[in-house]
Amino acid sequence: MLSKAVIKYIKSLQVKKYRSQHQAFVVEGAKSVQELLHSDFELQHLYVTEAFYREHTKTLAKGFQYEIVTEEDLVKAGTFATNNAALAVAHMRRLPPLQLEPNDFILALDDIRDPGNLGTIIRIADWYGISKVVCSETCADFYNPKVISATMGSFTRVQAYYLDLAQWLEKQQSTHAIYGASLEGENLHRMQLEPKGIVVMGNEANGIRPEVASHITHLIKIPAFGKAESLNVATATAIIIDNFMRNSTR
Amino acid sequence: MLSKAVIKYIKSLQVKKYRSQHQAFVVEGAKSVQELLHSDFELQHLYVTEAFYREHTKTLAKGFQYEIVTEEDLVKAGTFATNNAALAVAHMRRLPPLQLEPNDFILALDDIRDPGNLGTIIRIADWYGISKVVCSETCADFYNPKVISATMGSFTRVQAYYLDLAQWLEKQQSTHAIYGASLEGENLHRMQLEPKGIVVMGNEANGIRPEVASHITHLIKIPAFGKAESLNVATATAIIIDNFMRNSTR
Repeated sequence: MLSKAVIKYIKSLQVKKYRSQHQAFVVEGAKSVQELLHSDFELQHLYVTEAFYREHTKTLAKGFQYEIVTEEDLVKAGTFATNNAALAVAHMRRLPPLQLEPNDFILALDDIRDPGNLGTIIRIADWYGISKVVCSETCADFYNPKVISATMGSFTRVQAYYLDLAQWLEKQQSTHAIYGASLEGENLHRMQLEPKGIVVMGNEANGIRPEVASHITHLIKIPAFGKAESLNVATATAIIIDNFMRNSTR
Repeated sequence: MLSKAVIKYIKSLQVKKYRSQHQAFVVEGAKSVQELLHSDFELQHLYVTEAFYREHTKTLAKGFQYEIVTEEDLVKAGTFATNNAALAVAHMRRLPPLQLEPNDFILALDDIRDPGNLGTIIRIADWYGISKVVCSETCADFYNPKVISATMGSFTRVQAYYLDLAQWLEKQQSTHAIYGASLEGENLHRMQLEPKGIVVMGNEANGIRPEVASHITHLIKIPAFGKAESLNVATATAIIIDNFMRNSTR
């Protein structure tokens, strides 16, 4: 059984302030914890159910310290409505300094507030082999439990850098093409794109902020064939990245 | 102020059984109610805040019966955490019989359980001009308030038909190509697709059920360049449809 103090500690990590203070975050559910166990993240705590233990005995035997608890314990400590698998507390990772190579293909997120959207976008980046995502400081926090959960394990492979996006883009402008979606943009389907440069995606309701938009060098648009006014930002990200990758020779 | 009886009635419409019984459903929020007012759905009740009234006086004057209420009233009756705009109860629409033309391009959903995913997929269909979506009877209900909300108004333009999907596909097999995503499928980026036929998308966790998969005539896959094991079903739908539409001459 988890002690009250442990539950209180884990619950405190739902709040960014305490995550920063402890440099730790929570990972919940079978898929996410599995991916965590196969990553280079360092664990602080690992709680598993009997069922998860039985299914992953071999992995757990590789030197992990864990405690077998009940499903009720996991639900009490975590954010999931049900969790019959596992919950871990892991140390945040120190990222190497962000350095762009001339041929890098990078995603930049301006003010993506919804944790579900951010997590889904990180999962899309991982699908397409994009390992670095640059976020404005107003984006949802990468280590928010809802973000971690929506990445479906991709948080172990994609690195998110938080910085002043307008300032950073200004520095990249001379060496990298900077793409941004706009209704006045060029039709994606008619462009010969290659996966190189920076794609900027903007806020769910307001799009890209003017101070960020001013650094965009190429306006692009997803052609509409019907009457919907817009697409969800994660959906739009997926379509745009797919159009860049279709000509990839990787 | 909304009476207790009215609030109780509106709340009852969160449950499918009562929606069917009353043939009515709830629409919440500025964007969705606006689209509703410009559609051919028939209204049963319309509650607007002073602010929404001021912004849409002209539209409301076109013969709508409405009542001005407070934001608290809307939150009490509806499912939103905040709603400073409007809430409507509308009559469900009788759909014309489903008939496929030889050149139709249709989306078929097998067991899409999450209302947010279904709503997002309907919004994507609308963006690409797909006006008919066929759903297995186990899909989330089109009139579920979370589905309606996630469509961002596209529920007024896309018609969803609920039926026995395996049986229905069997009948279309001789006249329409039936596409389904599979890891063994052909790389979407290397195919010459045209927007014609039926695209089947499967359940969030389990994919397309075997009895439905057996009617697929073309297996396709979204190429992966990274290590994510899968994509969210709405994300995958968007990418697949975009690949079909890019060669559209419409």
